Amino acid sequence: MPTRSFEAIDPDYAQRVKESFYGQPFMRLVGGRLISVTPGHCEIQLPHKPELTQQHGYFHAGIIGTMADNAGGYAALTLTAPGKEVLTVEYKLNLLLPGNGKGLISRGRVIKAGRTLIVCQSDVFNVTENEEVLAATAIITLLPV
Amino acid sequence: MPTRSFEAIDPDYAQRVKESFYGQPFMRLVGGRLISVTPGHCEIQLPHKPELTQQHGYFHAGIIGTMADNAGGYAALTLTAPGKEVLTVEYKLNLLLPGNGKGLISRGRVIKAGRTLIVCQSDVFNVTENEEVLAATAIITLLPV
Amino acid sequence: MPTRSFEAIDPDYAQRVKESFYGQPFMRLVGGRLISVTPGHCEIQLPHKPELTQQHGYFHAGIIGTMADNAGGYAALTLTAPGKEVLTVEYKLNLLLPGNGKGLISRGRVIKAGRTLIVCQSDVFNVTENEEVLAATAIITLLPV
Amino acid sequence: MPTRSFEAIDPDYAQRVKESFYGQPFMRLVGGRLISVTPGHCEIQLPHKPELTQQHGYFHAGIIGTMADNAGGYAALTLTAPGKEVLTVEYKLNLLLPGNGKGLISRGRVIKAGRTLIVCQSDVFNVTENEEVLAATAIITLLPV
Repeated sequence: MPTRSFEAIDPDYAQRVKESFYGQPFMRLVGGRLISVTPGHCEIQLPHKPELTQQHGYFHAGIIGTMADNAGGYAALTLTAPGKEVLTVEYKLNLLLPGNGKGLISRGRVIKAGRTLIVCQSDVFNVTENEEVLAATAIITLLPV
Repeated sequence: MPTRSFEAIDPDYAQRVKESFYGQPFMRLVGGRLISVTPGHCEIQLPHKPELTQQHGYFHAGIIGTMADNAGGYAALTLTAPGKEVLTVEYKLNLLLPGNGKGLISRGRVIKAGRTLIVCQSDVFNVTENEEVLAATAIITLLPV
Repeated sequence: MPTRSFEAIDPDYAQRVKESFYGQPFMRLVGGRLISVTPGHCEIQLPHKPELTQQHGYFHAGIIGTMADNAGGYAALTLTAPGKEVLTVEYKLNLLLPGNGKGLISRGRVIKAGRTLIVCQSDVFNVTENEEVLAATAIITLLPV
Repeated sequence: MPTRSFEAIDPDYAQRVKESFYGQPFMRLVGGRLISVTPGHCEIQLPHKPELTQQHGYFHAGIIGTMADNAGGYAALTLTAPGKEVLTVEYKLNLLLPGNGKGLISRGRVIKAGRTLIVCQSDVFNVTENEEVLAATAIITLLPV
């Protein structure tokens, strides 16, 4: 699919995303960072830390799910009206490779911005010195409230 | 569906689950506890802590996903041979209510233990003084390796 | 999970389900039958026919998905107000066994009837002379409109 | 995501896909056609017929799911060794718009061809005289056997 372009109806969408993103205590606990946000898109990043791993030293699936859900959720939030928030209704995550990067990048994009629901997809990549490798993909259904 | 009964082929399955569960640095970071493990079933618990929340003080969706995936994964692990592990292939999580309990309980059960794949379902409950309320449900596909 | 009991707000819910179910040309093409409908629950059935199979003579995955989605959708419809319909937002289907029964039974039940969305689960069984065997399970998100 | 390129290990993959596709009695019943197949990709098409609809004259969700699953399954099959087949383990389908085209096109592509499992995504489009509009997307997990 070609990447679609969207228009934000809230000119301050980026500030709204930033405040909400860093307003999540759990995201601060794990150390996630908001990298970029444009209408219908959001990219977040997470450096590797030992306490974020499962029993073999890879990023925990729960962390990968967190990154996928968050990038999708904030991609959706860019398209909502001022004062709105989005709730995750459900998501499905396919884990394609162990999360063995020095960090994770998660890129969320809106697939469909409907009147009632917003559907997004997030791709999560293992980041090493030279490359990004797709480690997981998720489709997320969100409800603006 | 009536709850199915399973037999473990590894008599030491409970010890194996326990070691793997507490061998997860991320699960130690968030404070999850293994409550019970029987063949095909696993129950885990997580007390509320402010750093596990999203921007409104509820349990973060990433935490709820972590609890769902883990209970399902360890339910699956009870049925594997000694020395085996299980990888999450994919899961789908429906968030039914905000995670507003004083804690979360996640109960995973095996739906189908196939030769190649194990399919589990986890229910995640908000726990308050007097009751448990279903907050999320997930279906998880796992690969024994 | 214990089966929850629900109350229908439309006393004519059963008639509404029946009309909608048999109003689906595709369901008539494949030969599905509405077996029972109670508040929050719906059971449908499909006899085996050669033209419903895939290349090995089993029920086609598309047919199993159709049965899962329909039972869940009509379970949801029982709880809506008169004049309402439900749209499937998304569903996830795990295929656990080949669809090799003499027929399929699909039982849908409501997991959560929210204000905006209804979440259901459907189990699809292979039916033989003596038994029913779980062949697939699905979680379905529906939007009343 | 940029479209990945794959190499087929079976030089006769296209013939194998064709025979399997048209060997499905259910696909013949509904009238699906195989349009193109290249390594890691498959496109199939379905003209509108009244008997494929739900109660409002749109393509039935079960038909849309069938198209999504089939395009993904045959995209996966292009990458398998001679004599292999693929089983759908699970799929998740998001329905984005009513299936109101004069026909449906479903395009499946491989996201990850692993040693044990293949993960695909399918996009299903409503086709009208002048355009294609995305109506559904699915992520499918497949097992080569």
